[in-house]
Amino acid sequence: MAAPSYLLGVDVGGTTVSTQLVDAALRPVYELTVATDVSSPDATLESIAVGIERTLVEARAGGRLAAIGVGVPGQVDTANGVSRIAVNLHWVDYPVAACLQQRFGAPVYLENDVRVAALGVHRFDNPSQIQDLVYVSIGTGVAAGVILAGQPLLGRNGLAGELGHFIVEADGPACNCGAHGCLETLVSATAVVRLGKAAGLGAQAGRSLTAKDVYDAAAAGDAAAQQIVDMVGAKLGVALRNVLLAYDVDEIVLGGGVTRAGPRYLEPILAEWARQRAASAFARATLTPDKLRIADPRRNMGAWGAVALAARLSEPKIRRI
Amino acid sequence: MAAPSYLLGVDVGGTTVSTQLVDAALRPVYELTVATDVSSPDATLESIAVGIERTLVEARAGGRLAAIGVGVPGQVDTANGVSRIAVNLHWVDYPVAACLQQRFGAPVYLENDVRVAALGVHRFDNPSQIQDLVYVSIGTGVAAGVILAGQPLLGRNGLAGELGHFIVEADGPACNCGAHGCLETLVSATAVVRLGKAAGLGAQAGRSLTAKDVYDAAAAGDAAAQQIVDMVGAKLGVALRNVLLAYDVDEIVLGGGVTRAGPRYLEPILAEWARQRAASAFARATLTPDKLRIADPRRNMGAWGAVALAARLSEPKIRRI
Repeated sequence: MAAPSYLLGVDVGGTTVSTQLVDAALRPVYELTVATDVSSPDATLESIAVGIERTLVEARAGGRLAAIGVGVPGQVDTANGVSRIAVNLHWVDYPVAACLQQRFGAPVYLENDVRVAALGVHRFDNPSQIQDLVYVSIGTGVAAGVILAGQPLLGRNGLAGELGHFIVEADGPACNCGAHGCLETLVSATAVVRLGKAAGLGAQAGRSLTAKDVYDAAAAGDAAAQQIVDMVGAKLGVALRNVLLAYDVDEIVLGGGVTRAGPRYLEPILAEWARQRAASAFARATLTPDKLRIADPRRNMGAWGAVALAARLSEPKIRRI
Repeated sequence: MAAPSYLLGVDVGGTTVSTQLVDAALRPVYELTVATDVSSPDATLESIAVGIERTLVEARAGGRLAAIGVGVPGQVDTANGVSRIAVNLHWVDYPVAACLQQRFGAPVYLENDVRVAALGVHRFDNPSQIQDLVYVSIGTGVAAGVILAGQPLLGRNGLAGELGHFIVEADGPACNCGAHGCLETLVSATAVVRLGKAAGLGAQAGRSLTAKDVYDAAAAGDAAAQQIVDMVGAKLGVALRNVLLAYDVDEIVLGGGVTRAGPRYLEPILAEWARQRAASAFARATLTPDKLRIADPRRNMGAWGAVALAARLSEPKIRRI
């Protein structure tokens, strides 16, 4: 009888590295989160290696590691497994896949983390087996992973779905990218915190204000917080209309820490869609509430998406666009 | 020796029907433009049939008609060859392909006119053999045809690329679709005329103001006209940045009557891109002038795109997403 074979998914962030080990049937075997040491490019890679090594040792999973999928922030050269630029990890043209492949003797597939999370939603959080969807990650930044006909849209330079840098208000706040009024300056968790501070909202003692604090304050009846929540929801409602018209998918799935507010997060977005539907037959046909949901918060879509990446690329029949 | 075989492309507009007959090597054989009779749904179809019939008779092309491609405005059910809705042609769920197929005994392929024009650019106006491009049609409305990896992006409801109804100014002018501030209310030829009239620009005696008049007035030194041209260019520059980030294609190709102003039309758009590049390394890497051009004005992209549609679908090996 052949030795059992495993797949490993790794989600690399600026703070932590999370792993998910699964068996050949994609059942969970072991998972782990370790701190990311970003003191140097090599230190970042070493954190990943430590996370993988500890996972394999602690899982006591005797057998063969068939493939490793890795999701990393920033721009990725997928074909060569190179991180072209990942500011928070201090990587520029860093050959992540080659380094890990040499160390662990298994094929390593590298992809942008948001696109990886979109693969995770498509494979593991998709009861209706939808093949056309956009996953929108809302955190310190905003980005989208686009799945069309079951395949990720990469774009010619790995930039397809860079929704966070859509300019939506030409005279809006300055963005890290150098432009003004990019979507992420208006609706990211960072933007919610900035707006909350400007409105005088206070954090709990001993730590600074978070986006969740703003949503909690709104739920508790704070008018200033509610105004922020409504405004952000309205802007997201417009942006997600534009996403639907760009790709004409069946579903937009939202993820990222700020979406843990759940229905309270969706409500102001759906209110904007309802306003548009009330005024327009086109919007009534297009902006239906069933096209918008929040990703399953019980699953780490980053790590599970990396599992999906490893699975789809190591499967015998690779279907590609 | 086998009888020669032909392909026919048909571009259906609210005013005219244009045909393009080509031989098996896609060389032009004959072309024709007839008026569209939109007095009833059946009258519109009869106009197309007359256009096709006259083309075949006048071309004296003895041989077999291998396929007919037809581009029509509005929403199309491509799989069934049905026009789902085409307001200006008075069609609702009209079985265009079946009617023409019965009449002419050749397979008929129906597709949205802008998507068809994108196929035309991809096949007949593509010296660099680019496989990822967006064709943006700017006329009374604004819409995009998206080609990814050489294949048209259809979307789940035939709406992918409905760029004209991206909301870009929540408090902008009212749009036909019922929303406010859709892109086409700000940058379409119709919008340019509206802005020109509001600025007091006069037309030549005996006819009403056109978008071309506004561009001509700007070129002749009219400050109010120049202001409109600059404003429209800036808004298009922002919208096309967002298009590039959505699809990450190699090229955006602009078409439609208003783009016949040529370099004068591109200049204010490129000026906006230059402003963004000056402020941002991300924009410098992304918004390069080589990614933007105007479609070859010597070719009717609608009719030639319909030829491309007929060719790709009647070829022995059909490659699909």
